[in-house]
Amino acid sequence: MNKPFAIGIDIGGTNTALGLVDRRGQILLKASLNTTAYDTVGDYVKAVAEEVEKFKQHSGADNIQGVGVGAPNGNYYTGEIVNAVNMPWKEVIPFATLLKKETELQVTLTNDANATAMGEMMYGAARGMKDFVVVTLGTGVGTGFVANGQLIYGHDGFAGELGHMIAVRDGRDCPCGRKGCLERYCSATGIVITAKEFLADDDTSVLHKEDKLTAKSIAEAANAGDELALKIFEFTAKVLGQTLADAVSITSPQAIILFGGLAQAGKVLFEPTKKYMEENLLYLYKDKVNILPSMLPGADAAVLGASALAW
Amino acid sequence: MNKPFAIGIDIGGTNTALGLVDRRGQILLKASLNTTAYDTVGDYVKAVAEEVEKFKQHSGADNIQGVGVGAPNGNYYTGEIVNAVNMPWKEVIPFATLLKKETELQVTLTNDANATAMGEMMYGAARGMKDFVVVTLGTGVGTGFVANGQLIYGHDGFAGELGHMIAVRDGRDCPCGRKGCLERYCSATGIVITAKEFLADDDTSVLHKEDKLTAKSIAEAANAGDELALKIFEFTAKVLGQTLADAVSITSPQAIILFGGLAQAGKVLFEPTKKYMEENLLYLYKDKVNILPSMLPGADAAVLGASALAW
Repeated sequence: MNKPFAIGIDIGGTNTALGLVDRRGQILLKASLNTTAYDTVGDYVKAVAEEVEKFKQHSGADNIQGVGVGAPNGNYYTGEIVNAVNMPWKEVIPFATLLKKETELQVTLTNDANATAMGEMMYGAARGMKDFVVVTLGTGVGTGFVANGQLIYGHDGFAGELGHMIAVRDGRDCPCGRKGCLERYCSATGIVITAKEFLADDDTSVLHKEDKLTAKSIAEAANAGDELALKIFEFTAKVLGQTLADAVSITSPQAIILFGGLAQAGKVLFEPTKKYMEENLLYLYKDKVNILPSMLPGADAAVLGASALAW
Repeated sequence: MNKPFAIGIDIGGTNTALGLVDRRGQILLKASLNTTAYDTVGDYVKAVAEEVEKFKQHSGADNIQGVGVGAPNGNYYTGEIVNAVNMPWKEVIPFATLLKKETELQVTLTNDANATAMGEMMYGAARGMKDFVVVTLGTGVGTGFVANGQLIYGHDGFAGELGHMIAVRDGRDCPCGRKGCLERYCSATGIVITAKEFLADDDTSVLHKEDKLTAKSIAEAANAGDELALKIFEFTAKVLGQTLADAVSITSPQAIILFGGLAQAGKVLFEPTKKYMEENLLYLYKDKVNILPSMLPGADAAVLGASALAW
């Protein structure tokens, strides 16, 4: 009854990536579009549908299980992209409905972090797990919570915003209008803010030589042994570990999988995050929760994650 | 295929209550035992099984779907009661296995808060809901999270300990060994600690006349308009509302149901809790999450909740 292929679509503000994927996570065909090159949503959806048509011709339409879409502010229940700030069109976009009409395929849509969680469960670090969390540490912080083998969507489709849990009460201003959200500390953006604060009281770090501080340059300095860069990661990991410990007390996951730019930093992030999480865990949960790196291949992770929605 | 009756058993440190319940939540027969009156776990289980036998004779063994058990530190996966501090026997008690052997009925066991959540979904305030949270505000704070119509047990059966989320970083000492846990502020125990702190700086409250402060006496004073008692509830509700706002960002529930002694306080608790939760919610969740009182009948709530596990 299950068909051999699925199509994954990752919608970003600048680029839209598509892939024809088999059940083992092999990408057979790829395509990409410039999201900003279309005047109307209708033109954009038509262009996406044309790429889907090429995939159909390659695999045979009858061999495609369906289309999975990961999109910023994507809502699983409605199939809509809701007021995503980075999209060229600001309105509510009923993307799943529109694409289904154009392609006559089943279309399932959710946000990027949920799609990544499905990808980790189907092809990545969470294979065989029924209770885990994926935390995407990119420009912001996204999360996909899986319990009983199912994504937690919540009653309205918007569950899983650990990036907006208050990590530091009355802390840094967040563009969401509140203070102290996790993503102001533990995203690629947040660690740069921390670095600037720490550099103001320091004379010796190699980071003073950077023209433009990034999560990557801070990670490189830390991995090369720069003391201030290591302190920056220690601070970041403390905030992350404390917040993860709180999240564990709600869903008690087997593992927390860190994904995205900041997660590439490796052990300078993972080791102190694990340490601070353990220090802050209720005794019931101690020494039970693994913190793991993503096992989805970087460049194709989003497309793979999206495709996993279709199965 | 489904049978008309279930048996609910609520195990407490002093009392064990049993009920024969129909699908609408009517209790047809009740029984109770003194949990502390037995020398061994085996004797205790035999006594419980004798009461179950009487229920069987009343309804016919073939008409009973199964037995649901709510117990402190009850683990759904193993059917064990694990190191519960209030039980007469400190070891791990494989209660579900033992009772199944004695009664030849299917036995499902979980902790009290999860059982209450099932009860609210089957017979109470959460009828028809698939995504909600039950928060039991008693001596401690317990929680049952339901997502996609299923209880979140976590990989080890110990999910749902909102009472041990860190509500106040470096706050009050908790017997769990950490600081600032929600239940040190928002349980019947926690509000008494708050009252003692607030009374130290006050001359006028009627609470000075109380021989023994309790959640109930503070609630009565607040409902009678005592200013200090109202401030105590305002503070309690602020801590609770902030923490609930964080929990919403994980599971996005349709409603949060408050149950237990402290929840009896009524609007002096509910109104400020709702206010502080809304103030602290991410914009995505504002004006969507109801805070509701339990609709399980007080004295029988635990037995009803336990029976709901059997369906």
